[in-house]
Amino acid sequence: MTAKEIEITCPLPAAPEDRITLAHGGGGRLMHRLLRETVLPEFADEALAQAHDGALLALGGERLAFTTDSFVVNPLFFPGGDIGSLSVYGTANDLAMCGAEPLFLSCGFILEEGFEVAALRRVVRSMRQAASSCGARIVTGDTKVVERGKGDGLYVNTSGVGRVVSPALICPSEVHPGDAVILSGDVGAHAAAILSVREGLRFETALLSDCAALWPQVRSLIEADVEIHCLRDLTRGGLATALNEIAQTAQLGVFIHEEKVPVQPEVQGACEMMGMDPLYMACEGRFIAFVPQKDAEKALACLRRAVPDQSPIRIGLVTSDAPGQVRMVGRLGVERLLDMLAGEQLPRIC
Amino acid sequence: MTAKEIEITCPLPAAPEDRITLAHGGGGRLMHRLLRETVLPEFADEALAQAHDGALLALGGERLAFTTDSFVVNPLFFPGGDIGSLSVYGTANDLAMCGAEPLFLSCGFILEEGFEVAALRRVVRSMRQAASSCGARIVTGDTKVVERGKGDGLYVNTSGVGRVVSPALICPSEVHPGDAVILSGDVGAHAAAILSVREGLRFETALLSDCAALWPQVRSLIEADVEIHCLRDLTRGGLATALNEIAQTAQLGVFIHEEKVPVQPEVQGACEMMGMDPLYMACEGRFIAFVPQKDAEKALACLRRAVPDQSPIRIGLVTSDAPGQVRMVGRLGVERLLDMLAGEQLPRIC
Repeated sequence: MTAKEIEITCPLPAAPEDRITLAHGGGGRLMHRLLRETVLPEFADEALAQAHDGALLALGGERLAFTTDSFVVNPLFFPGGDIGSLSVYGTANDLAMCGAEPLFLSCGFILEEGFEVAALRRVVRSMRQAASSCGARIVTGDTKVVERGKGDGLYVNTSGVGRVVSPALICPSEVHPGDAVILSGDVGAHAAAILSVREGLRFETALLSDCAALWPQVRSLIEADVEIHCLRDLTRGGLATALNEIAQTAQLGVFIHEEKVPVQPEVQGACEMMGMDPLYMACEGRFIAFVPQKDAEKALACLRRAVPDQSPIRIGLVTSDAPGQVRMVGRLGVERLLDMLAGEQLPRIC
Repeated sequence: MTAKEIEITCPLPAAPEDRITLAHGGGGRLMHRLLRETVLPEFADEALAQAHDGALLALGGERLAFTTDSFVVNPLFFPGGDIGSLSVYGTANDLAMCGAEPLFLSCGFILEEGFEVAALRRVVRSMRQAASSCGARIVTGDTKVVERGKGDGLYVNTSGVGRVVSPALICPSEVHPGDAVILSGDVGAHAAAILSVREGLRFETALLSDCAALWPQVRSLIEADVEIHCLRDLTRGGLATALNEIAQTAQLGVFIHEEKVPVQPEVQGACEMMGMDPLYMACEGRFIAFVPQKDAEKALACLRRAVPDQSPIRIGLVTSDAPGQVRMVGRLGVERLLDMLAGEQLPRIC
């Protein structure tokens, strides 16, 4: 199944362009267009123009990274995580993608009237544990309540401030032709875990979200003096979307081998059952790194030491031809374009 | 009508304590208890323990302030502002209350399926204009979409990072017995403007929200070397709640004169019609300052120069007796306790 076929069969509502659709929140082409046409021209800031996971900013003599994410994941609790751990890791990971140590997190709750206080307590505990495991502090917060039927239990916003420790700039604009594309582990487990709960799928082994902190792996790369050009975590839209974003921002081509992309058998099985493509399945604990060829082996060795149970692998390289495009040699040896989807295969995945 | 009477007549649902009620989002006693019992014991951070409008943090050699707010105001557009300007001013004002210059803002949208893109465009423009007027940059953002019936058009989270420029610590713990309590202007216009739209009230003159940036006034105090002990903006729960929060955190008493608190006739009229108390009505462009008596006149002169159309006034002082309590001499000369409400008079005011 090609990306084009997925688009054609994707049940996108034929909504007029003047209304928000679920696909606008999917991280794909519709969301990028909404931002490009509606938000970015007004805000017009150089930090936003970087199209990075967070803003790289100078404050006095310090270099800091600043990022925000709202979480609307459904269900709130899923195998391997919950909205609490997801919201902490999600924001801490965006800081890590900037080469920044996650230091301070904020926490904004939007609660729906009638939500159980015990569930809130579980989420708060999960946030605390996740923050501890990242070495980050939750230092400020806000709580709002909306009427029954105006929310969905709980939405969480986490914003984060980190200190950039990478000596070189890590940013899509730093990607160079010839860079190796390294994937930190198998893809799609977060989306598949959510899917298994929503659809009531059962597997022989437990299918858990990959939701985890990425800073330890990024720190190990920085400490080993790996020359990192760019990092991107694979959230909404998965690996294919992340690669497309980088290719478009850097105006370079990306070429990958499908057979090299690790996918757990349970994830592959869920995808086949539901007609989904693992390359577009969201992860919450995986990333891609763009490093010069000379540092690729060193980077892989670092990542293997940092997370022995994952399988970091070089999946491709950056090219100067076909700027803005991602091409892939499929399992059968046929080369094709790996496009961005219009929306997300699974709404409210994070 | 006393605060106690208001509590008794307040139509609080007799909900079991294990479910979230609208009153939990009102900024009053129920919200404080929810945070104290459910959130703060887990997060247990010294910055949160300051019970301040934002966190005061050290990052390398810099002192920064970090704050977050989610906005669920209903309606999205109201006389004198909208959710866009409100979200920018609200967060920038929390930074100002820390003695920090607002520098960087994040913006997280939670959109409901079916929301009009044109309305989003208006909100974005309003955010940009408000940010410009604060001298702050919107540098990072996030967009999520939820299904129809799981939101209410648009919720906005803004978080902010500022640089603390006040030489001395501005914090509830710095309040001293004998400090003058200075109010920057008339109270309740924001809540009354929201009320007028919701209830369809008409007044002889336009009733506009007081939604505005407070940093220019705070900066003028700092530049004039006014010794500022504490600042607090008067949002949910209004003046009475802000005074109670400071009295409780500082474990000191506060004594004020009701007749000194300026209230616009239209706001007074709306309150009388609806059975509400202006002292509990939310503002989004007013604050109280705690300064030593010696600096009170200087502070007033500064504020008068900074905002000539407002009427900054000294409304009372801090006492060492009755710690944690706010007492008020009413218009008829009778002294009474000014308590915190359980919730908010108007839900979803910000």
